Amino acid sequence: MPTMQDVLLALTNYWTGQGCLVVQPVNSEVGAGTMNPATILRVLGPEPWRVSYVEPSVRPDDARYGENPNRLQTHTQFQVLLKPDPGHAQELYLGSLAAIGVDVAAHDIRFVEDNWASPALGAWGLGWEVWLDGLEITQFTYFQQAGGQSLDPVSVEITYGVERIMMAVQGVDHFKDIAYAPGISYGEAFGQAEYELSRYYLDEADVPMTRELFEAQAAEARRLLDRRLPVPAHGCVLRCSHLFNVLDARGAVSATERAQYFGRMRALAREVAQLWAERRAELGHPLGMTAFPPPATLPEVLPEITDPATLVFEIGVEELPPAEVTRTVAAVRDALTRRLGATRLAHGEIRVHGTPRRIVAVVAEVAPRETDAERTVRGPGLGRSYVDGVPTKAALGFARGQGVPVEALERIGEHVGVRRIEPGRGVVTVLSELLAHLVGELRSEQNMRWHDPALSFARPIRWLLALLGDTTIPLAVSTVAGGRTTRVLRNAPLPVVEVPEATGYLDFLKQHNVIADAAERRELIVEAATALAEQVGGVPDFGVLDEVVNLVESPRTILGGFDPAYLALPPEILTTVMRKHQRYLAVRDAEGALLPHFLAVANGDCVPEVVRAGNEAVLRARYEDAAFFWRADLTRTPDSFRADLAALTFADRLGSMADRADRIAAVATDLAAETPVDRDVLRRAGELAKFDLATQLVVELPALAGVMARDYARRAGESEAVAQALFDLELPRTATDDLPATTPGALLALADRFDLLVGLFSVGAAPTGSSDPFGLRRAALGILAILRARPELPLTLDDGLRAAARHLRTDRPVGARDFLLRRYEQQLLDAGHDHRRVAAVLPLAEAPATADATLRELAELSADPGFADLVAALQRVRRIVPPGTAAEYDPARLTEPAEIALHEAASTLPPATGLADFARTATVLIDPVTRFFDEILVLVEDPAVRATRLGLLASIRDRADRVLDWSAL
Amino acid sequence: MPTMQDVLLALTNYWTGQGCLVVQPVNSEVGAGTMNPATILRVLGPEPWRVSYVEPSVRPDDARYGENPNRLQTHTQFQVLLKPDPGHAQELYLGSLAAIGVDVAAHDIRFVEDNWASPALGAWGLGWEVWLDGLEITQFTYFQQAGGQSLDPVSVEITYGVERIMMAVQGVDHFKDIAYAPGISYGEAFGQAEYELSRYYLDEADVPMTRELFEAQAAEARRLLDRRLPVPAHGCVLRCSHLFNVLDARGAVSATERAQYFGRMRALAREVAQLWAERRAELGHPLGMTAFPPPATLPEVLPEITDPATLVFEIGVEELPPAEVTRTVAAVRDALTRRLGATRLAHGEIRVHGTPRRIVAVVAEVAPRETDAERTVRGPGLGRSYVDGVPTKAALGFARGQGVPVEALERIGEHVGVRRIEPGRGVVTVLSELLAHLVGELRSEQNMRWHDPALSFARPIRWLLALLGDTTIPLAVSTVAGGRTTRVLRNAPLPVVEVPEATGYLDFLKQHNVIADAAERRELIVEAATALAEQVGGVPDFGVLDEVVNLVESPRTILGGFDPAYLALPPEILTTVMRKHQRYLAVRDAEGALLPHFLAVANGDCVPEVVRAGNEAVLRARYEDAAFFWRADLTRTPDSFRADLAALTFADRLGSMADRADRIAAVATDLAAETPVDRDVLRRAGELAKFDLATQLVVELPALAGVMARDYARRAGESEAVAQALFDLELPRTATDDLPATTPGALLALADRFDLLVGLFSVGAAPTGSSDPFGLRRAALGILAILRARPELPLTLDDGLRAAARHLRTDRPVGARDFLLRRYEQQLLDAGHDHRRVAAVLPLAEAPATADATLRELAELSADPGFADLVAALQRVRRIVPPGTAAEYDPARLTEPAEIALHEAASTLPPATGLADFARTATVLIDPVTRFFDEILVLVEDPAVRATRLGLLASIRDRADRVLDWSAL
Repeated sequence: MPTMQDVLLALTNYWTGQGCLVVQPVNSEVGAGTMNPATILRVLGPEPWRVSYVEPSVRPDDARYGENPNRLQTHTQFQVLLKPDPGHAQELYLGSLAAIGVDVAAHDIRFVEDNWASPALGAWGLGWEVWLDGLEITQFTYFQQAGGQSLDPVSVEITYGVERIMMAVQGVDHFKDIAYAPGISYGEAFGQAEYELSRYYLDEADVPMTRELFEAQAAEARRLLDRRLPVPAHGCVLRCSHLFNVLDARGAVSATERAQYFGRMRALAREVAQLWAERRAELGHPLGMTAFPPPATLPEVLPEITDPATLVFEIGVEELPPAEVTRTVAAVRDALTRRLGATRLAHGEIRVHGTPRRIVAVVAEVAPRETDAERTVRGPGLGRSYVDGVPTKAALGFARGQGVPVEALERIGEHVGVRRIEPGRGVVTVLSELLAHLVGELRSEQNMRWHDPALSFARPIRWLLALLGDTTIPLAVSTVAGGRTTRVLRNAPLPVVEVPEATGYLDFLKQHNVIADAAERRELIVEAATALAEQVGGVPDFGVLDEVVNLVESPRTILGGFDPAYLALPPEILTTVMRKHQRYLAVRDAEGALLPHFLAVANGDCVPEVVRAGNEAVLRARYEDAAFFWRADLTRTPDSFRADLAALTFADRLGSMADRADRIAAVATDLAAETPVDRDVLRRAGELAKFDLATQLVVELPALAGVMARDYARRAGESEAVAQALFDLELPRTATDDLPATTPGALLALADRFDLLVGLFSVGAAPTGSSDPFGLRRAALGILAILRARPELPLTLDDGLRAAARHLRTDRPVGARDFLLRRYEQQLLDAGHDHRRVAAVLPLAEAPATADATLRELAELSADPGFADLVAALQRVRRIVPPGTAAEYDPARLTEPAEIALHEAASTLPPATGLADFARTATVLIDPVTRFFDEILVLVEDPAVRATRLGLLASIRDRADRVLDWSAL
Repeated sequence: MPTMQDVLLALTNYWTGQGCLVVQPVNSEVGAGTMNPATILRVLGPEPWRVSYVEPSVRPDDARYGENPNRLQTHTQFQVLLKPDPGHAQELYLGSLAAIGVDVAAHDIRFVEDNWASPALGAWGLGWEVWLDGLEITQFTYFQQAGGQSLDPVSVEITYGVERIMMAVQGVDHFKDIAYAPGISYGEAFGQAEYELSRYYLDEADVPMTRELFEAQAAEARRLLDRRLPVPAHGCVLRCSHLFNVLDARGAVSATERAQYFGRMRALAREVAQLWAERRAELGHPLGMTAFPPPATLPEVLPEITDPATLVFEIGVEELPPAEVTRTVAAVRDALTRRLGATRLAHGEIRVHGTPRRIVAVVAEVAPRETDAERTVRGPGLGRSYVDGVPTKAALGFARGQGVPVEALERIGEHVGVRRIEPGRGVVTVLSELLAHLVGELRSEQNMRWHDPALSFARPIRWLLALLGDTTIPLAVSTVAGGRTTRVLRNAPLPVVEVPEATGYLDFLKQHNVIADAAERRELIVEAATALAEQVGGVPDFGVLDEVVNLVESPRTILGGFDPAYLALPPEILTTVMRKHQRYLAVRDAEGALLPHFLAVANGDCVPEVVRAGNEAVLRARYEDAAFFWRADLTRTPDSFRADLAALTFADRLGSMADRADRIAAVATDLAAETPVDRDVLRRAGELAKFDLATQLVVELPALAGVMARDYARRAGESEAVAQALFDLELPRTATDDLPATTPGALLALADRFDLLVGLFSVGAAPTGSSDPFGLRRAALGILAILRARPELPLTLDDGLRAAARHLRTDRPVGARDFLLRRYEQQLLDAGHDHRRVAAVLPLAEAPATADATLRELAELSADPGFADLVAALQRVRRIVPPGTAAEYDPARLTEPAEIALHEAASTLPPATGLADFARTATVLIDPVTRFFDEILVLVEDPAVRATRLGLLASIRDRADRVLDWSAL
């Protein structure tokens, strides 16, 4: 069994053999090998570069005193950078696994979508996590941008997580037990440093000093950029980054500060990158220029065929994100249908299938040639074409232009013209062009570049196969040539195979263990999963099935188990880990309770025992990780966690998270003033509000905020109502999430969001453009969702904003109310409501439930002709009354009968409880209004008379306006 | 040919094979691999540890913008630490050279004394530079102390300078041309960083910020030590060390500050070490405890021999410092002579020889046994022993006590007693014990420990050979057992050989290419060197011959050459490099001018062409290095360098080096007030004083200060007198150095030293104990030497001190004058002068030349009986006159004839020009003094009379005191 240092040496030797330079780790603390100038600077510009190195990566946040089996503040990365992308980096990578003794045929090794971005470095890339039996062992990235610069050429970055690989290879459960070198364990070699540096990062690092050091390094970077020295400036940026990480681990960075720090680092990194690139250009790019591979070419003569045949067209890609598989299948189907439709090729059914590595289109019975077409060209009018039957100059000219003798002109309607037959092109010619265009235009939601001058897609396109019967259709798409080979599973004995003919291609693939049809894969998984779950008396939870189907080409469902002891953990922890992190199907008993089993779907042939054992170890590690935090958390009380919130900075000028929790409790109490609610529950839940943010488990899995509050509160002996209110406080977490189930919970949830909104608006951190780093849109939507769902709450938006502002000791910020109203308006419009009606109810949106009800009533009333009359009558009233006219008049001064009639009708109106109520009662006004306008001149000379009449109308306007903005209709 | 990365990998693989752990470089800038905690912390305490790693080592001082072929601010160390010393680390090391493709048989590989100390880390060790054909490629150290702690067990530290090794292995002349990896040179990989970081360290690093960072890190270290976290505290110390280096490279550290910075870092390093050791103890020393090898044992029965035989006794060591070879030969000869003399073993001549690796003693004709000895034990008196011839109880008891029958008692004088024969012990028994004691007590000037519980010597003792004829004398000295094998040259086909017999051992060694006799080696070298020099028409300069003789066991003198173009350099540069750095013999022509050749003395068989080429390359590199600086310096004027001194801090509160140079000029001008001197020369030399301290060559080779000033001044067109004065200014540099040849030079040299002395005394930096970091003792001795050599200069010590104080704007510091006088006194005593005479002339030492002359006169006068009378007379005078009595009297009040006679005799005395003059003329006083005391009572009642008489005597006293302190005689 290789030791860790054996593995590091073997990787070094392997990549050296692939032409990589070996360099040393950076001599300052970095969070990842990416930050080594041998990567982050060398990816810039046109020079080729291949490098590999070990990088001890320091993440203060991951410090655990060496107690957590899987978490270290310093872990060892092995970093490889290949510039340009060599086109077969995945295969090279698999070779490296073999070189360190991993049996790539026995294990389930997969490339699972995982994109990477470093806001601090202005860098991002697309790629994968590499899974070894479910364990993430490597990050594999096509580097697209660094320092804000688009990279050309694109580099491949491969980052091995060496401790994880070692734990898997050696089968140990704690990093300390890794055999680091003969006779010495990892813990023996590095355990003390791990402990002490954890102490430093978590407990001891001096915060004010660290801030000062950050400022000093940032200033020095600035100065060095001005001196045009990118290398030492980069060193300063690295130190800034580490110092920021230290501050962060000490809990000293508020959310607003974080954004500022990131912005500063990004700006510096951008300048460093720019300057480095400039300097390399000035130096004349000493390492030379990268050239793209030569473009693919077509043969001079394309083959012709004579009989209709099946077309198989396969686009071979590196592992697509699951969602892109579905999307691309549809896109190719549409494009093919459309493009074939635009030709004169006869063809049968078009079917398109997809796996992570291929999109396969099969078109039945494609004709050997296009049908011929007749084309008519109209010339001059008959009258201008012949004079006395003799062709004029116009006719002669037209004929010459068309390349026909003038005798060949025919009469087409009132003109002369030419009819010509356009012969159909051969199918190969047509398809060669058509398919090339199709590939060239493929795009995904998020596209990337690789080492190709023209193509861009979700992941690199690596091969193209196009067969018509047994004829190869030549293809040339940028640097990719078509052919008749395909690639099957990477660990197959023959990973590249020649395809004899198009017919039966899906079966051919199946013989090579590739199931091209997603439905078929789904069925295989469902069947296998159901059978396997049955073995343990359960049923699968198919929650992540859609994704899983597109993570494999050759599903092998494997039943694994975990220690039933973990079932003591809150089930949300277990399912979150299974679904989000591992894409396992959970197994439940008939009552829906979790069983200590899971279903992993591996790809292709492998040794099931090996894969099961690997996946079980991964899950155990993750559960142990969670259990570690959970148990640690359970040794403390909610109150003590609540006290810890004082150490978590919330935002500049908005105090700590404890201050925020205090405000939430206070605002909720204010909001409860008029609401029937169990005040003891509200008070206690307020006292504990958000306490779980200080728990280790929530720090680790933030998605479990609320869930853990409920769990810990229950276990600490709080009442179920309090526990539930603490859970409710966090709801809704997404647009489709549940809403608070209890009134105390709803009030706390509202208070939470009003505080967030008012707080951040008051410090000028309102969202701009698409940027909403503090989730204020989500908060606003939460407020609206709760209020809309709870008409019984006697609360307006303004109540909430005012209460929040009071406890924040600030004024109600101008923008916050408008921000809420805009969200509400948008919700209504998105739901398909007529924009006029939306506008009509918007003034009522202070109480969104009322506005909702009015909107419903308005829809119902719209069918009612009487309502239309009422609207017309009220609009006549509104039109004549100048804005600002007070609804005051002395009835005694009314003299004309029509005046008096209107006054009397209005006086009979009872107070309206809503639009429907008003519409029903206000019909009494329609006739008097009509009569009034028929008989009375409102704008008379006499000011007293005029004022009286306008006052009367204004009083009607005002009563109507209480239930609707009639002007919007 | 291996690339640099091949070599790094090969070294890693080799040492991994020797059980070394591989770790990564430290993630902060360090000056050497030693500072990695894997070395500097792991050497502490009892746990075993073997590690190897690459360490990019950052030395801001060595930054040269990548322009200098041999100098980099970041160079690559490969570091190996073996704890405990495995006993054959040198052999392991040679194995590693073979592993990277160095043919150890072809090259001259030597271990040349080089000890190591890091004041900042409180660490030191003894060991060697390893030379490959004269090129220092490795530092090899037995680590004795770290963080102020003595190390037990001792570790072996091996530090390879990888760039140097690569340049030698690949035969390239510039580091940029090293093939780093296939197809990429070192310059291509790292050239830009080298340039930019040079810019940073030399020109751009912000000095105030760097100081602040130092303070921050020092404070953080302090805090972390209090928290008992040695690992992060060590990190802070490393950062302090680097920040200090940055300040130093920016010329921002004064001499006094340097001492303070070092003191602070040392104190922190000491605490880190202590705390680490404590923490490891608290953790129970997880890696176990190192045990010493078992002690050697003797056989139960030692062999006996019957005939006289030759003794050969060899102490085998690792390469001794050359001076220790000579010393140890003498010490072993003395010890052997003394110890054999204390036995009753007859033996012939004792001869002792030595090489760096062995001390060989040969004793002729050692007898097979000690002679027998008779011993007498006296018992009770005869009277108490027998009563009537019958033994008394006393006699019986004595006999019993002696273990003999009472009848055996003999008469010994007036007592009974016993005579017994003590038989001589066998020679093997005697020598086994004697030689073991001799080895156990061997000590050198500076001793070290290795992995042995009891032994301590200049270098480890690795084998013992003791043969008497053909009989092995068993030896057991701590863990080292004697035997009959010896070790010959390390690259011999059989490096360990068995010795058949003692006789002819030196010839036996000679057959194995080892010349044990230093005289013989010297002769071989002289002969070969002379013959080789003759080939090029020159003669060798044997300046370093004594050292060279003891650097080899098997001298092979090789003639090498260098480019005659280098002869354009000042010869002092060339000879300094040859002698000090390379231990080459220079070759001179008949006029003493250097020829472009050198003589290197290699050790043992090697391929001469290879060794010559290697040594030539080294010398070329060193000369190129010097020439690089020299040429760079010549592009500038002395005045511009002089201006640069403003940027070199001299000392706290004493300004810059420019301030100091200004003061030197001003003080010299003051001192010249009464001196005939060419004032133009003095003024111009003063303007340029010390300008060469700013030149690159002097920064590099400080020993050439003055030499380069003269050279550069001449080349800049200054007059020869000015050039010489600038050279003189620096004289004398050592106790045995030349003195200034010119008066302007002497005045400047005095001014230099007075300024140094007064300046540092005034800021409280006077030397304490044996510590004299600023060389004030040397400065004082320089002042005295110049003044003693130039009696014509009308200057006193006080003149110098006063002038220096005036220009320093300070008071004359109390201690400085006394410090000078004490040095002068000590010089006289050390020269063997009688302490009374020294005391007698000391009051004249204000002008040391006068004191010198007086001392000489005093010595001459001592033989003169008349002088003794004069002394007696003057002492009678002195005894009666109370101190403080004024030499005033009214001659008219003298009445007694004896009074008047004395007055008259005194009045005839001419002013004395010195002691001899005074002694000659003052004889006239002897009789009148005698008569005066015979006839006159001085201390009469009448105050006026008494005062008159005392005044007369005081006037005589004062005149005498002007030439000598008579009281001291």
